[in-house]
Amino acid sequence: MGYKTDIEIAREANKKPIQEIGAKLGISSDDLLPYGHDKAKVSQAFINGVQKNKNGKLILVTAINPTPAGEGKTTTTVGLGDGLNRIGKKAAVCIREASLGPNFGMKGGAAGGGYAQVVPMEDMNLHFTGDFHAITSAHSLLSAMIDNHIYWGNELEIDVRRVVWRRVVDMNDRALRQITASLGGVANGFPREAGFDITVASEVMAILCLAKDLKDLEKRLGDMIVAYRRDRSPVFARDIKADGAMTVLLKDAMQPNLVQTLENNPAFVHGGPFANIAHGCNSVIATTTALKIADYVVTEAGFGADLGAEKFLNIKCRKAGLSPDCVVLVATVRAMKMNGGVAKADLGAENVDAVNEGCANLGRHIGNLKSFGVPVVVAINHFVTDTDAEVQAVKDYVETQGSEAILSQHWEHGSKGSEELATRVAEIADSGVSQFAPLYRDEMPLAEKIQTIAKRIYRADEALMDQKIRDQLKLWEDQGYGSLPVCMAKTQYSFSTDPTLRGAPTGHSVPVREVRLSAGAGFVVVVCGEIMTMPGLPRVPSAENIHLNEDGQIEGLF
Amino acid sequence: MGYKTDIEIAREANKKPIQEIGAKLGISSDDLLPYGHDKAKVSQAFINGVQKNKNGKLILVTAINPTPAGEGKTTTTVGLGDGLNRIGKKAAVCIREASLGPNFGMKGGAAGGGYAQVVPMEDMNLHFTGDFHAITSAHSLLSAMIDNHIYWGNELEIDVRRVVWRRVVDMNDRALRQITASLGGVANGFPREAGFDITVASEVMAILCLAKDLKDLEKRLGDMIVAYRRDRSPVFARDIKADGAMTVLLKDAMQPNLVQTLENNPAFVHGGPFANIAHGCNSVIATTTALKIADYVVTEAGFGADLGAEKFLNIKCRKAGLSPDCVVLVATVRAMKMNGGVAKADLGAENVDAVNEGCANLGRHIGNLKSFGVPVVVAINHFVTDTDAEVQAVKDYVETQGSEAILSQHWEHGSKGSEELATRVAEIADSGVSQFAPLYRDEMPLAEKIQTIAKRIYRADEALMDQKIRDQLKLWEDQGYGSLPVCMAKTQYSFSTDPTLRGAPTGHSVPVREVRLSAGAGFVVVVCGEIMTMPGLPRVPSAENIHLNEDGQIEGLF
Repeated sequence: MGYKTDIEIAREANKKPIQEIGAKLGISSDDLLPYGHDKAKVSQAFINGVQKNKNGKLILVTAINPTPAGEGKTTTTVGLGDGLNRIGKKAAVCIREASLGPNFGMKGGAAGGGYAQVVPMEDMNLHFTGDFHAITSAHSLLSAMIDNHIYWGNELEIDVRRVVWRRVVDMNDRALRQITASLGGVANGFPREAGFDITVASEVMAILCLAKDLKDLEKRLGDMIVAYRRDRSPVFARDIKADGAMTVLLKDAMQPNLVQTLENNPAFVHGGPFANIAHGCNSVIATTTALKIADYVVTEAGFGADLGAEKFLNIKCRKAGLSPDCVVLVATVRAMKMNGGVAKADLGAENVDAVNEGCANLGRHIGNLKSFGVPVVVAINHFVTDTDAEVQAVKDYVETQGSEAILSQHWEHGSKGSEELATRVAEIADSGVSQFAPLYRDEMPLAEKIQTIAKRIYRADEALMDQKIRDQLKLWEDQGYGSLPVCMAKTQYSFSTDPTLRGAPTGHSVPVREVRLSAGAGFVVVVCGEIMTMPGLPRVPSAENIHLNEDGQIEGLF
Repeated sequence: MGYKTDIEIAREANKKPIQEIGAKLGISSDDLLPYGHDKAKVSQAFINGVQKNKNGKLILVTAINPTPAGEGKTTTTVGLGDGLNRIGKKAAVCIREASLGPNFGMKGGAAGGGYAQVVPMEDMNLHFTGDFHAITSAHSLLSAMIDNHIYWGNELEIDVRRVVWRRVVDMNDRALRQITASLGGVANGFPREAGFDITVASEVMAILCLAKDLKDLEKRLGDMIVAYRRDRSPVFARDIKADGAMTVLLKDAMQPNLVQTLENNPAFVHGGPFANIAHGCNSVIATTTALKIADYVVTEAGFGADLGAEKFLNIKCRKAGLSPDCVVLVATVRAMKMNGGVAKADLGAENVDAVNEGCANLGRHIGNLKSFGVPVVVAINHFVTDTDAEVQAVKDYVETQGSEAILSQHWEHGSKGSEELATRVAEIADSGVSQFAPLYRDEMPLAEKIQTIAKRIYRADEALMDQKIRDQLKLWEDQGYGSLPVCMAKTQYSFSTDPTLRGAPTGHSVPVREVRLSAGAGFVVVVCGEIMTMPGLPRVPSAENIHLNEDGQIEGLF
């Protein structure tokens, strides 16, 4: 095809010193803590200083259910941000940081794609500014302090069978999923079963991404439940006295990271919680800071809109007092065709019927998003093989749903390709039509919250919860956790819990396997399916081919 | 007393932008990769560019055997560096990075003390520039790849009972010393015994600190032995194909870190290998780079001269082709008194007899160091309670040993207090009298190398090695490892293996418990005593009191 790869395009980027990027948002050099010449953290002092500013407009980018064809949510987020800047708006994007470990299993993910990327891509897929390492350290400190407390006499009377705080490492290491720790005799403690998750699954990550400031961070860290006693009463991180030191370890990580798009526009890349057992959005502090200094902030949520946007709206917006002014729902012609039953190998051929068939998935997401009171624009993320007839089919369908679809060619043309989308999104955001409200009230009982999401978002007949789960939810309500939102963990590939059910399934039910309390992050995790919190490496990990070439460039990571 | 604490002094530091510090050594802003405004890495490109420069003078700071009274080795290193700058010399210091984990057990160590410190102290005791996190990541990747290899069929026929590659975490976590991994069934691999060390004990750390450049780093990483087969043949990291990706993870960490002293003089702080199972010096790349751009480089070695200087000279200098121009042996009046039998509580009272008694320890170190062909100056690191008579006693004793002792008051007065020491050290370094040669030749059999150190440095009657150990050494010689130096792991508190034997013991022998091959780092570790590679936390870890105060300053870490 003659198209350049993402990494080739990224390496040709004409990056500007990060101080110039900061200046676009009024951040002085003194308020930027540089990490090399192209990355910086925004100082806490600066953040404190802009709190009284008026908020800019908040634009959420979400997507249809992901298919192997790819939907390009981050690419569209970046492309839209560049488009807004192109039409003269002061805009910034806010996206998530990448997890280090998984890059050594499969090839690393770029931050965006084509001519809509954030750079420096290599750093963002490696250590970046060390935020995830800080989270691993803070998590590990608490882990060590819990076993140390037991070792020295267990004054808190922790039931060693009921330590719920697992350890973490930012690596795909299946051998650590389940271990027996403290073996080797008296000097090493009391043997017990334990295990590791990957760092992004840590509650510390979720907390960092929801905390308003360092004080709030410390409070939430202290609120985490790490174990239970024999009488089932909870033991908190605060009881272990780990919250202060964990906050110290996280103080730099709490400051949002500033980088740039290929078009030298500001991008905040900060935080990256799991999108199943956590809420899957970039940090509150990055989003709220960006809103204080940019007129338009484009951000995204993990997975499809049924999971990502639902959590963004019901958890992040609720907790942070945010209110989106416009939602952009990303769809591709190829993904519509896959939802319409076309196999990946056959995506190259024009197939308007399959597009029409697959639009049911898109339509349901539009309806769901509108139920939050937010205006929705569909962005058709253009692939070079899409035909005009296929694109028109999507547009026509979206019109029948009372919304509008705009073709965007940012992947191929950068901001030149997203100008129309940006113009329309800005109009809608400025119009003030958004009437956002979360889907359920804080006061609604936890089981009802689950039913509400199952019925109104997944369009299931019901959520199935056995007595044990209902009792658990009731107990948490009695303990004062009833007002928390719920954080759904289910497959991202379908509205249902069956990943093979594409399109817009009906007649299904949502079986709840397990519920977990993230008392520090402030939500109840509702597990509806197999959730993997420690991935393994494939037979041939990409790490085997990753190396520095003769020019010192990284090969094999992308 | 009215003296300020180290942290109070450090917080009052009038730090200059790191670019100004770099400029003193001819490093331009472009060649500095900043981490905040007061830390930077020196770019690989710059390092490549100065390779043809002439080397400056190398000054090693070492010490008598440590006592609870403290000897102030780093403080003297920093004070001497500042002193050299004060008398108009272009000097830089090279010291080690601190390990994160232990700071949460006991109070964190400052980098130097009094008015001879390196700043920013908080950062250096926390994440600093992320080097140790990168080492943890690289180590963890190899760990995961080994078990992943076994999981997918074990083509290399690794004996799962003979995996010698342990895992690491930068935290004092005794519960992880010995574990059973890969529990939980088929999906999690083959259960086996495993365990964690603290990051600084990783062979990756030793390698990072000995590698000349990235190519050398990659080769050494590949050379590491990770396991053995049933036939006892070794499996290398290269066989696991982890060396390339590990190098990518370490590429930034390989660049030395530049910070500053309280007097705004350049300080390189890079690497921090264990001083028992590894060689305990800052990185070769920092030292060799500093030598290319400074006229005088002051560096230090871990523990007392019997361990630290011996390894600096026999391992680091040998491997890196370095040759010290002067050695500064740090002693304190208080430490002399403790070596002379005075209890810590009684150190306040003048006791010239005890000083004279304790000088035997000092004398032996002087003799040992001279046997390497290097000129030795004793620096008496002044404590405010030292009396003139006590100081004079040390000076007189040193003179009888054919050396000279100089009182240095850098702790109290900064460079003003170390001017005399700096002047004399510069004279000696410039004089060209150093005739450095390592203690033993590469060709000497391994067992003989051990005997040489035991007899000539520890002044023991002999090193005791049973047949099993002799056979193991012989096997390594047959496999081509016979030319490696040996890395002694014994107590730092005595010339002997009994930590209570202060002074200059004789008539002892050195029992060798175990030998280990660090094939990538390039030395044979000789374990003579209990060596702890994963510390535990105390009953009341300092972490319990660490927190951010209302001004956002860290409390409790120091």
